[in-house]
Amino acid sequence: MKSFRADIRVTLKNGVLDPQGKAIEGALGSLGFDGVDQVRQGKTFDVTLNAKDKKAAETALTAMCEKLLANTVIEDYDVTVNQSDK
Amino acid sequence: MKSFRADIRVTLKNGVLDPQGKAIEGALGSLGFDGVDQVRQGKTFDVTLNAKDKKAAETALTAMCEKLLANTVIEDYDVTVNQSDK
Repeated sequence: MKSFRADIRVTLKNGVLDPQGKAIEGALGSLGFDGVDQVRQGKTFDVTLNAKDKKAAETALTAMCEKLLANTVIEDYDVTVNQSDK
Repeated sequence: MKSFRADIRVTLKNGVLDPQGKAIEGALGSLGFDGVDQVRQGKTFDVTLNAKDKKAAETALTAMCEKLLANTVIEDYDVTVNQSDK
C-alpha cells in the first residue's frame, strides 16, 4: 500500500445559482475592488489515503465524490492524485 | 483592459483544527471507504476580473484575499491567474 495525497475540487455547475458568490461580488465592490465580473464559490478536499496504486486511489476518490463529497445534480468534481512523499 | 480568470484556494493552516474535515473522515469510514488517513476541507473562489495585465490582476486578487476572502490568522491562500478566452 502506498500513500497518496489527492486534491478534490467541487464546484457548482454552470447555470446553477450561486448566492454566496454573488454576495462576495457585492462585498468586493463595496470594498472598492473594480473590474470584478463574476465570483463562483466552491469547495476543496485535501484527502490523504492509502491505496495499492494510483489507479485504485482514483477509483476510490471518484466513488467518494459520487457518494458523499459532491451533489452531482448541481455540482461538478475534479480529482487530482499525487503520490505522497512518505 | 483584459479579462482574467483566477482560481483562489483558501485552506486551513497546518495545525488548525478542522472539525468539518474530521466529520468527513468519519462519514467516509462509515460508508466503507478504508485507507483514508486524513481529510482537510477548504474553499475555492473562481473569480473573473478585468485588469491591465496579469501582474495587476495578481496584485488585486492578493489584496482581495487579505481583506475579504481569507482569514490570514488561520488560513493560507493560493492565487492562480489564467488569461480568459474572451
